[in-house]
Amino acid sequence: MVRGDWLAAPPGLAAVPGGSATTPAGFAAGASACGLKASGALDVGLLRSVPRAVSAMVDTASALPAAPVLHNRGLDRAALQAVVVNAGIANAATGAAGLEDAHAMAAAAASALGLAAGDVAVSSTGVIGDRFDIGRVRAGIAAAAGVLGPGGGPSFAEAIRTTDRWAKSGAFRIPLGDAVVTLGAAAKGGGMISPRMATMLAYVTTDAAVAAGDLAALTGEAAAVSFNRATVDGQMSPSDTLIVLGNGSGPALRGAALETFRSALRAVCRWLAVQMVKDGEGAEHAMRVVVRGARDGEEADVVARAVGNSPLVKTAAFGRDPNWGRVIQAVGQALAGRGGPGADVAIRFDGRSADDPEVAEVLARPEYDLEVVLGRGAGEAELWASDLGHGYVSLNADYRT
Amino acid sequence: MVRGDWLAAPPGLAAVPGGSATTPAGFAAGASACGLKASGALDVGLLRSVPRAVSAMVDTASALPAAPVLHNRGLDRAALQAVVVNAGIANAATGAAGLEDAHAMAAAAASALGLAAGDVAVSSTGVIGDRFDIGRVRAGIAAAAGVLGPGGGPSFAEAIRTTDRWAKSGAFRIPLGDAVVTLGAAAKGGGMISPRMATMLAYVTTDAAVAAGDLAALTGEAAAVSFNRATVDGQMSPSDTLIVLGNGSGPALRGAALETFRSALRAVCRWLAVQMVKDGEGAEHAMRVVVRGARDGEEADVVARAVGNSPLVKTAAFGRDPNWGRVIQAVGQALAGRGGPGADVAIRFDGRSADDPEVAEVLARPEYDLEVVLGRGAGEAELWASDLGHGYVSLNADYRT
Repeated sequence: MVRGDWLAAPPGLAAVPGGSATTPAGFAAGASACGLKASGALDVGLLRSVPRAVSAMVDTASALPAAPVLHNRGLDRAALQAVVVNAGIANAATGAAGLEDAHAMAAAAASALGLAAGDVAVSSTGVIGDRFDIGRVRAGIAAAAGVLGPGGGPSFAEAIRTTDRWAKSGAFRIPLGDAVVTLGAAAKGGGMISPRMATMLAYVTTDAAVAAGDLAALTGEAAAVSFNRATVDGQMSPSDTLIVLGNGSGPALRGAALETFRSALRAVCRWLAVQMVKDGEGAEHAMRVVVRGARDGEEADVVARAVGNSPLVKTAAFGRDPNWGRVIQAVGQALAGRGGPGADVAIRFDGRSADDPEVAEVLARPEYDLEVVLGRGAGEAELWASDLGHGYVSLNADYRT
Repeated sequence: MVRGDWLAAPPGLAAVPGGSATTPAGFAAGASACGLKASGALDVGLLRSVPRAVSAMVDTASALPAAPVLHNRGLDRAALQAVVVNAGIANAATGAAGLEDAHAMAAAAASALGLAAGDVAVSSTGVIGDRFDIGRVRAGIAAAAGVLGPGGGPSFAEAIRTTDRWAKSGAFRIPLGDAVVTLGAAAKGGGMISPRMATMLAYVTTDAAVAAGDLAALTGEAAAVSFNRATVDGQMSPSDTLIVLGNGSGPALRGAALETFRSALRAVCRWLAVQMVKDGEGAEHAMRVVVRGARDGEEADVVARAVGNSPLVKTAAFGRDPNWGRVIQAVGQALAGRGGPGADVAIRFDGRSADDPEVAEVLARPEYDLEVVLGRGAGEAELWASDLGHGYVSLNADYRT
């Protein structure tokens, strides 16, 4: 069983049935199949704001970003109006020619949508190192624009999938006194994209009227507590991108309303990030690694990442083994050079110790908390992590054989 | 096919047929089965120098070292005369009671060998968190001492195995003008030990007469270019220990002879480290990751570790996929915050590029070089790494199910 409570609507947010990135007023999307996916499935998506929007963007820290990321960095990241995405080929490690392809995708989308080229952000996900046939992609963009509409959100979310087991799409309403703000979302990732590269792509739309500076700050914050706190295999993609578009079709946000929106944006980004972990390749269990009692937050983060990325911890989770010794090993490695823990390390699985007879039931759950308490201070951190099983190896090793 | 050229004797060293840690003059070993291994195989080993030896020791950087490591740190690491090892239970994360057990193992071995307790180093490998029956281990130590002799090296190497597919044991002769120095070696590791924890244990013996200060320096250097440049799963054990004993039964080493010995010690440690990588759990291929053209050696090391520990690179190696895109991804992640590569990154598999029709033959080899050339400077590093396949997942996840 893959799904579980962690995929439910975040507390305080009302899920819109069938909601998507185009549920907020003033957004439209479309998708088409241009042949980049061998299956013939949708592989080109367009998402735009109809009224003029403000935007914010966070992208990969990789020193070798993909061509679309380089394209987007040349734009005014507060003035984006649309995104064009293809799945199947990542347009990464493609050099100057790949950058020209990214520019050409933006130009084709802008032309089809009646926007300036500088208004359009680009994402590509799939095989690294290959180039696509730009003519085919241009035709796909024209076809997607031809079906563009306010009902296009779900097909946009379908188009950006690669090995995702399910499309990640939704919308939520936030009451703000007399007004209501709507947030829409689409994302892909959590595993290999094509079977060659993990990519996280996420798009959040809202009808709220938010100042560009506020949106940039809130988006950075939201990424820090969501996508940057999720791991499948600890591997950073050259394509990772989060774009938030706010078009002001709804209420203006200031003061307390802005604070409520801030919490909602964090919650929606976290909801997407947790989906990626739940959809990690071959993953059968998702863990929320919670570290407490570190000297400070930075140390807690180092420990949480060591535990959540440890292949020994992750294979134990796959095998439903309450193997606290491996957690201890990862903690010891993380604290190397920082001195010993200074107290016993407590390890609990949804509150149960490894020798609790009930722990077997916890480890059979599709999702649980793995809590590590160090007793060195007040530092805390959390990290969502998938397990590591045969499915991961098969997806990443066997596809050519 | 697991074996290959990398397990052949290092260049310039003559392998002694059937050689072991007791091949150098003045060493004796013994082993017994006390029941810690469910199979009933040998699980307690003793190795000693008969003439008074000098010694050197390098151990884990883990912030949570196992009890035997804590015991050994209380000794004069230049004055060790013997080691006592058990396999099956690691005596790690066992607290004060475990430390008492480690002291008791040393005391029992010292008593049986007629040494002072402070002369005896202790190692334990196996399950973390469990305690053993010290009475049973004491009986095993007495039994091992009863069969102690100059022919005991191979059984010592057997006794320290856990999930190792083969015992790691050998001896080499080094001509030094008119004299000959002999180096013997035993090691375990490269995978899970018990199926719970990777542990690297290595013991090198020599009849050379080396000053204690020289031996300490040479041992540290040798560990840095061998065990510290090998990875199976990137996980540091709380038990990792290297001990070198030199008993002066053979020639004294100074000047050029000391330099020759230095090279030989590095070569023997590398020979052991490469065996651990070749014997990584489920490993079918071993790679020597060679990074050139980094800004400096530190940067080259960061890149080599990112590549050699990447689950995407390792599963591709398992699948015999020349997936240079995943190598690029790991390089981009490693260089995050350090600026882009500043030149194209070249990736070669035993000298062949990913699009070379012959590369499939390279990737079928049990061992090959994965070369990454950055073009940013003159920094170089190398790292031996295993692949990641279903065998790793099975060994680490399936044993309870």
